[in-house]
Amino acid sequence: MRISELGEFALIERFRRRIRTDSSVIKGSGDDCAVLKFDRARYQLFTCDMLVEGVDFYSQEDPFLVGRKSIAVSLSDIAACAGIPAHCLVSLGLPKKTSVSFTDKLFRGMLAMARRFNLNLVGGDLSSSPKLVIDVSMLGFVEKKYFISRGNARAGDVIFVSGTLGGSIFGRHLKFTPRVKEARYLVENFRINAMIDVSDGLAQDLGHILRQSSKGAVLFEDLLPFDIRAKGLDDLLYSGEDFELLFTASRPQAEKILRKSGRLFKPIGEIVGQGRGITLITTAGKERGIQPKGFRHF
Amino acid sequence: MRISELGEFALIERFRRRIRTDSSVIKGSGDDCAVLKFDRARYQLFTCDMLVEGVDFYSQEDPFLVGRKSIAVSLSDIAACAGIPAHCLVSLGLPKKTSVSFTDKLFRGMLAMARRFNLNLVGGDLSSSPKLVIDVSMLGFVEKKYFISRGNARAGDVIFVSGTLGGSIFGRHLKFTPRVKEARYLVENFRINAMIDVSDGLAQDLGHILRQSSKGAVLFEDLLPFDIRAKGLDDLLYSGEDFELLFTASRPQAEKILRKSGRLFKPIGEIVGQGRGITLITTAGKERGIQPKGFRHF
Repeated sequence: MRISELGEFALIERFRRRIRTDSSVIKGSGDDCAVLKFDRARYQLFTCDMLVEGVDFYSQEDPFLVGRKSIAVSLSDIAACAGIPAHCLVSLGLPKKTSVSFTDKLFRGMLAMARRFNLNLVGGDLSSSPKLVIDVSMLGFVEKKYFISRGNARAGDVIFVSGTLGGSIFGRHLKFTPRVKEARYLVENFRINAMIDVSDGLAQDLGHILRQSSKGAVLFEDLLPFDIRAKGLDDLLYSGEDFELLFTASRPQAEKILRKSGRLFKPIGEIVGQGRGITLITTAGKERGIQPKGFRHF
Repeated sequence: MRISELGEFALIERFRRRIRTDSSVIKGSGDDCAVLKFDRARYQLFTCDMLVEGVDFYSQEDPFLVGRKSIAVSLSDIAACAGIPAHCLVSLGLPKKTSVSFTDKLFRGMLAMARRFNLNLVGGDLSSSPKLVIDVSMLGFVEKKYFISRGNARAGDVIFVSGTLGGSIFGRHLKFTPRVKEARYLVENFRINAMIDVSDGLAQDLGHILRQSSKGAVLFEDLLPFDIRAKGLDDLLYSGEDFELLFTASRPQAEKILRKSGRLFKPIGEIVGQGRGITLITTAGKERGIQPKGFRHF
């Protein structure tokens, strides 16, 4: 059997079942970051993201933006755990015919993003490769009291996103700002129950929250924040790489969030009891079941 | 200009010059691992290694051994800093046509190596890719008092290796044992001045110690521990992936090492003052200059 028949998530689950970790690991695979013991007040966050030419970007794209994106996607994972980024390593697979000016621009993009978020680039590995591959591994910290997983959404919670959705493929995926500051603002001022970053599409990433929280969700089409580049509802629901925060908070907390920063965070629906999956209430007032599908590599 | 004209080390240096890190970084790029502040007694070690199909292994090789190697190379970097491995992440770029049984074997090889060294595999990233790419990022710890860099070799130090050299391409690079235990034994029982793992060939990796220590070296051909698979002196000096420890210690410490464990650690030469590069004393008693060259990706 080929992995494309098995599917990405079944393959990950197949790996995950065999892993055993010791008590220094608070959370292994299955969240945006691995969560590790650090000191009395904090956890360490550890995450990696691989970008491959022809899959996550194309060779004709501006190398500065590709370098920028390679750092930004891992920053978005740290943000999804409400963490503060600290250090990263960059593994770079480069075709032998790559020009020095290309690698200069790539590296400038990485450094620009690192500097903006006080991230130390502390080393890496260089290899030749038939196609450009960039893998960034990143460390961060989060106070224990602020750590938020995907698995704690509660019935009655309001579901929020930190910005518009859709249209990523039309340039946005190379230019997004990871929501590190927004996530810190949220945990420092409100009680957030569950959080993830939208990297594989709203439906699929909301699906992760629901499965890990054993809950369902109702979304309201009227409330969905369409990006001006979004090409309709399916683009908003199923295309990946929006890199906005998707989070839930109780109704009293949600009211506080709306009062204080309703311009930043948009309510789009509500968490409901288990077994209902995702239901969309359309503009016409009809109920429509939404599959938790989205971008998959296989 | 292409990167192949500039060369691997000039390209790394070009990147390195632009990097600024804060005071939480004890050592950034330029050693086997990045060295980060951790707690009062220990540093955290952070390293990554990328393996690419067709460069670091071939598609017909046993996937169990490829998986094993992907973890072992980073363990070897932790060993070179005398560290204790703790956690790793695996980024995997897989061709869509990969079979499930191939990925099962690959993963079993990774887990076997992780288990042997009490390493937690805490997550990763999965991507489609035209060729198989594996990037492993790893965390470890080392007591401050035990940390050894590449840059502290002293004139008069004896140069040691932890095993035989050469012949790596004839299968050894897929089956080596990272010298984690040997490195710990060394720092817990002796004072070691400089250490590195031989990943790009003896001459090149000794060259790193010499450049960073501002020293030269004399090697004795008679003392070089040829692997039974080694194809002559050039193979021993210049081919990569032996993954043995290369280290230096003062003469009194060296005598202690030889007395206690001369079967494990072989003396091969001596550190001398700056400006002499590497000199080989041949079996015939002649002096021969050795270029610090070895495996390079570009």
